[in-house]
Amino acid sequence: MAIRALIFDVFGTLVDWRSSIAAQAKSTLEPLGYSTDWLAFADAWRNEYQPAMEKVRSGQRGFCKLDVLHRDNLDIVLGRLGWHKVDEPTRQHLNLAWHRLQAWPDVAEAMAMLRQQFLLAPCSNGHIALMANLARHNHWHWDAILGAEIAQDYKPQAIVYQASARAFDLDLSETMMVAAHSSDLEAAAVAGLKTAFIGRPDEYGPGLGEHTATTTVDFEAPDLLALARQLCKG
Amino acid sequence: MAIRALIFDVFGTLVDWRSSIAAQAKSTLEPLGYSTDWLAFADAWRNEYQPAMEKVRSGQRGFCKLDVLHRDNLDIVLGRLGWHKVDEPTRQHLNLAWHRLQAWPDVAEAMAMLRQQFLLAPCSNGHIALMANLARHNHWHWDAILGAEIAQDYKPQAIVYQASARAFDLDLSETMMVAAHSSDLEAAAVAGLKTAFIGRPDEYGPGLGEHTATTTVDFEAPDLLALARQLCKG
Repeated sequence: MAIRALIFDVFGTLVDWRSSIAAQAKSTLEPLGYSTDWLAFADAWRNEYQPAMEKVRSGQRGFCKLDVLHRDNLDIVLGRLGWHKVDEPTRQHLNLAWHRLQAWPDVAEAMAMLRQQFLLAPCSNGHIALMANLARHNHWHWDAILGAEIAQDYKPQAIVYQASARAFDLDLSETMMVAAHSSDLEAAAVAGLKTAFIGRPDEYGPGLGEHTATTTVDFEAPDLLALARQLCKG
Repeated sequence: MAIRALIFDVFGTLVDWRSSIAAQAKSTLEPLGYSTDWLAFADAWRNEYQPAMEKVRSGQRGFCKLDVLHRDNLDIVLGRLGWHKVDEPTRQHLNLAWHRLQAWPDVAEAMAMLRQQFLLAPCSNGHIALMANLARHNHWHWDAILGAEIAQDYKPQAIVYQASARAFDLDLSETMMVAAHSSDLEAAAVAGLKTAFIGRPDEYGPGLGEHTATTTVDFEAPDLLALARQLCKG
């Protein structure tokens, strides 16, 4: 069955969250007199991401938008640094840094090519507003915002991939998940979708991202533009 | 509080469903030997729309995508005409005519203007795939597809308007419903949203649409382009 839609992981796959969060944390907090290794600050914030979602996936906590989890996690990180005096408006502003992440440089050209051939949507753990704001920030053009919020659960739960395919009225095998994370793609494949891996070797710092897939995928490319050229040559 | 997002009724407000359905029914069925007043065919199909949704709104039937209701209604209309031999692939193709409706002529220019100032989304009883396909067909650029499917109920239930505002992380009063139907806007206002009426005087045939609002609204204009000029002059 032909692939008719591509759905995308976003954090790490389309946007460089680490540099973007570090830059925004620095520009927000340094003028207030705070100083630290800002990339380590970004890593610490991101490290709380999976444990927070796991509470939702396990049923320990009801579904909530990712902003709520990001905010809990920010408070944890600021607390650990002893930065208890960071005020509420500053915390709220900084929490929205996730709505203003910069895309990797190949994304705009690749998305324009892929759009000619496929329906396109994010299938992210970020909620609808976050994804809509990221799209504005990076001039992306989605056909719909799918993913965690429409499924009311977090990846890698199978329902998130399946609900996204079904929202487009497509069979699971007509829908391909694109990600820079093998674990995300392994879950999507088990859920019944096609999968494409792209490398983002610098996601966690120079050379510290995934270079190649460690699970079986339908397509693999060194970046999104290379994948677009593979998929659109036919 | 400033308006930050516009959410739109689609059938009748943005697209001329009556002419589009009549033309597609004719081009699909006339070559098979069927003949009728095709505008009356479109009206008959549309007349089954509210009763079908009422079963969902009243809880008599669980939420389903609008394609399912449209298909039930198509079968009713074909049955009444005695056209029992229209085959399954033809019915399926014709049912998707609602994914290929033409926009009123002022919509493209108006949407481009409004997009500079507001987040934009459909708040339609059409489901995500139908709205995504209509957007492709008419070259629209939505920030997200909101409305009935994300709320799992049909307008004019308050939850549909409210879920759409909340999906954008906005207060109800920061979100404005735009429609050519006073009843839709009355429900949106009761739900807490701002409202804008635009005229579509030919929706049900020449002169047979709503010219002016019959309920109190925040803004009113003779068409969408006029509304865009009102809202974007500031």
